[in-house]
Amino acid sequence: MAEPTFGDRLAAAVARTGPICAGIDPSPALLAAWGLPDDAGGLRSFAATCVDAFAGVAPVVKPQVAFFERHGAAGLAVLEHLVADARSAGLLVIADAKRGDVDSTVAAYADAWLGPTSPLAADAVTAVAYLGVGALDPLFALARQTGRGVIVVARSSNPEGRPLQEALLRAPMSAGAAGDQSVEDGLLAALAEMNRVELAGRPESTVGSVGAVVGATLDPSGFPLERLRGPVLAPGVGAQGGTPERVAALFGGCPAGTVVPNVSRSVLAAGPSVAALREAAVATREQLAAALG
Amino acid sequence: MAEPTFGDRLAAAVARTGPICAGIDPSPALLAAWGLPDDAGGLRSFAATCVDAFAGVAPVVKPQVAFFERHGAAGLAVLEHLVADARSAGLLVIADAKRGDVDSTVAAYADAWLGPTSPLAADAVTAVAYLGVGALDPLFALARQTGRGVIVVARSSNPEGRPLQEALLRAPMSAGAAGDQSVEDGLLAALAEMNRVELAGRPESTVGSVGAVVGATLDPSGFPLERLRGPVLAPGVGAQGGTPERVAALFGGCPAGTVVPNVSRSVLAAGPSVAALREAAVATREQLAAALG
Repeated sequence: MAEPTFGDRLAAAVARTGPICAGIDPSPALLAAWGLPDDAGGLRSFAATCVDAFAGVAPVVKPQVAFFERHGAAGLAVLEHLVADARSAGLLVIADAKRGDVDSTVAAYADAWLGPTSPLAADAVTAVAYLGVGALDPLFALARQTGRGVIVVARSSNPEGRPLQEALLRAPMSAGAAGDQSVEDGLLAALAEMNRVELAGRPESTVGSVGAVVGATLDPSGFPLERLRGPVLAPGVGAQGGTPERVAALFGGCPAGTVVPNVSRSVLAAGPSVAALREAAVATREQLAAALG
Repeated sequence: MAEPTFGDRLAAAVARTGPICAGIDPSPALLAAWGLPDDAGGLRSFAATCVDAFAGVAPVVKPQVAFFERHGAAGLAVLEHLVADARSAGLLVIADAKRGDVDSTVAAYADAWLGPTSPLAADAVTAVAYLGVGALDPLFALARQTGRGVIVVARSSNPEGRPLQEALLRAPMSAGAAGDQSVEDGLLAALAEMNRVELAGRPESTVGSVGAVVGATLDPSGFPLERLRGPVLAPGVGAQGGTPERVAALFGGCPAGTVVPNVSRSVLAAGPSVAALREAAVATREQLAAALG
């Protein structure tokens, strides 16, 4: 039997622990609020505190790569340790890198974030498809090979993203997408088609390697999300706009454990006490579980 | 008098040296072809050779960040040294990172690539606007403040990018863009509007801080590129599809020194000899100068 897909692993972890993706965002503002210096040492303390707090109470953490990259190579060294420590503590790790390019460059990003021997290798990485979803193929291929995942931004929750993401395709985005669609729906259809093909070849799996970011503050689009059959990373659940009614309309048909709300600032504001962070994560997780029904 | 903009600095460097952006792409294939190990030591040799070869014969180099990130923190440490060494050698540096996100995350990417004290700070960074051009504002703001640049992918030369980039906007992408436009033209109009506002406030400048990636293998779109008034990074000039006729049609009206063709593999194939790389860069630069008229 094949190794489980990233989607299977995520769904199993959510079934065990509950629906929350805990962001690890050592922004300058949060470092200051936690009384930590804005340097690699501060990042290291912040990261260690988050791993201690979230192990056992969240199924998955999402370090925001930009806040580590901000400190150059020294920051990336902290991220390497964070990824290893979090995985050792039983947490899944989604590297929020939003990478995207073409050809051998995408293959290099795949090596960096999903390669079996890379010091940065996470369980999944976020990606952006402005240069075409097909251009991300080396990421999808390595994810399938290594039991890891790629989560592509489809419908972001920020208002500036709406014009581009709602633009109408004049040509299909992939063999699996029809022409009369928005960019975001064409992208979701292309991702769903990849999961369909992957899952057709492995009947023991129920959730594929390819996921999408879909903001919970939006109204449903034309693409029924239950057809994705991959993980959905959902910012905004429980926050302004992400009401229980809207969440039910957006994600109601999705299989259990495939929709993982992302929460960062509202939980991290409880730090730097490990106990207070843990308590905030558990309380938020229970609210999210209720919102997702 | 204000410091020159990145666009002014780039145009001046092109006027002195000629129109070429030399890519620094230490891919696994090129490391092997140069007889270098696929590790941080190999990257270091590759980078040092490129700086030696391109100093004085190219105005600007473009390290592809993915090939450094592939080696984690150790790779990023090599990139830090490369950026410093290239700038010391009089080269401008465009970090080809294609970053993009929202809010404090974009501000962190701005700090990383354009911040005055960052170990990775280049002269400009490439960005991607899937989450909206307005979401990139912290990058644009820091670029203007520090005399650096942001180059946003608008029209990529790969075929997978066409459906998304040609999709039709249903709502304007920014205050400066009309509704009846493709994504790529709406984006170009938004970038042009930023340069217009910047340049209106500094009459001593002629080229703004905000640039675009526009593939030279494409037919012209509805947006007249001479209205951008910012740097154009153009892959594909002289390569297949980027014929002199097409180049003239695409870039003919752009001010001198604002269109910088990017060349990577065809020059790097001449390595690892510094003399051979230098010769290839000069020969390509002269072909490009002829193609750009």
